[in-house]
Amino acid sequence: MNDDARGAYADFQMPLAEAMTTQRAIRRVRPDPVDDALVLRLIELALKGPTAQNEQGWEFIVVKDPEVKRRLGRQNRVMWRLYRPIAHFKARNDPKTQRMNDAVEWGVDHFEEIPVFVVACFHGSRFGFPPVVAASTYGSIFPAIQNLLLAARAAGLGANINTMPLWSNWAARRILGLPFGVTPCVMIPLGWPIGKYGPTTRKPVGEVVSLDRYGARPWKKA
Amino acid sequence: MNDDARGAYADFQMPLAEAMTTQRAIRRVRPDPVDDALVLRLIELALKGPTAQNEQGWEFIVVKDPEVKRRLGRQNRVMWRLYRPIAHFKARNDPKTQRMNDAVEWGVDHFEEIPVFVVACFHGSRFGFPPVVAASTYGSIFPAIQNLLLAARAAGLGANINTMPLWSNWAARRILGLPFGVTPCVMIPLGWPIGKYGPTTRKPVGEVVSLDRYGARPWKKA
Repeated sequence: MNDDARGAYADFQMPLAEAMTTQRAIRRVRPDPVDDALVLRLIELALKGPTAQNEQGWEFIVVKDPEVKRRLGRQNRVMWRLYRPIAHFKARNDPKTQRMNDAVEWGVDHFEEIPVFVVACFHGSRFGFPPVVAASTYGSIFPAIQNLLLAARAAGLGANINTMPLWSNWAARRILGLPFGVTPCVMIPLGWPIGKYGPTTRKPVGEVVSLDRYGARPWKKA
Repeated sequence: MNDDARGAYADFQMPLAEAMTTQRAIRRVRPDPVDDALVLRLIELALKGPTAQNEQGWEFIVVKDPEVKRRLGRQNRVMWRLYRPIAHFKARNDPKTQRMNDAVEWGVDHFEEIPVFVVACFHGSRFGFPPVVAASTYGSIFPAIQNLLLAARAAGLGANINTMPLWSNWAARRILGLPFGVTPCVMIPLGWPIGKYGPTTRKPVGEVVSLDRYGARPWKKA
């Protein structure tokens, strides 16, 4: 183990497999404050993620100010009001998705009480075309975001990915004072969880893996 | 610790912080084979990553067939020949980036000898606009990819993200037999490393973090 892992990151010693298999979106959190030092350590581990050409072209805005929260919370509500009927239609026969929608709605209703948010941004204002360029742009921010979420899980801190407050790039840029060359990507609410982390369920691996050509599924269980 | 972490994933017990702080792109790997069972476990941990609305709309193609490798290797060479002069110009005063370019070139030259690749794909053929949609699409595949890379690091297996072989979506789709509704995103070469994992260096966290509004940097060291 190297010095970094022994010293500054003493709180993040959870075995990798345990962190991954018990990571889940935690949307209901307490209003109790989260130490700045912890938030900064989460971001520091995020920065260890890979970026294309090692460019590290990113910015992280830590949001605690009630006025900034209020304005982003309003954006979030506008989007949820539009999306809510679709979300409910999709969940009409699926209690699990209904529970997810309830949690999302909790996050919309209690947005301003969530103690801290991290807005992850990338340099550039790419339009995401062609796909190879989009993959390079988003592939240089989401590995960092996943590191942040896994580190939050190891620390027992609730977290999830929310894109809704940023649906209007223009509004989000104005609220956060972002220059044109910096694009907000996702907003991560952080707080001590109401509820628990725990194992998640996924489709069996053999159903989503092909060998050499799409559809050849030698590892699919009959 | 839950059963998953104790049993099936016994090889991935490295502390989270150590995996993150010693993850780096490994491009030079030996031609020795990698067990299918290990590759599948990496993908299984990838599947634990979050997806928007928990849709799990992904596909993973494990590539071992020499003919499929040869055709993707040719795509990779076409792109590298175009990009090489730019990469070398960018690195002209920077020995570290020159070393990275050398490693990339090694990967281009030895593409067919790399024992196995994983091509991560997502459902849909989004054009990545508006940014909020692109964030949702790519944010539902790159957390999985980062899980795969971290798990490879914990297993001591070399890995990195390569988008070049997929620069032509049309060609990649044809080579891999992907239907129109499945978009190839990145290609991950896997193999036992020539060279070592080890700590990476990054900009200090205070230089990329703002409080409440962009540019307010209370944690920047003078």
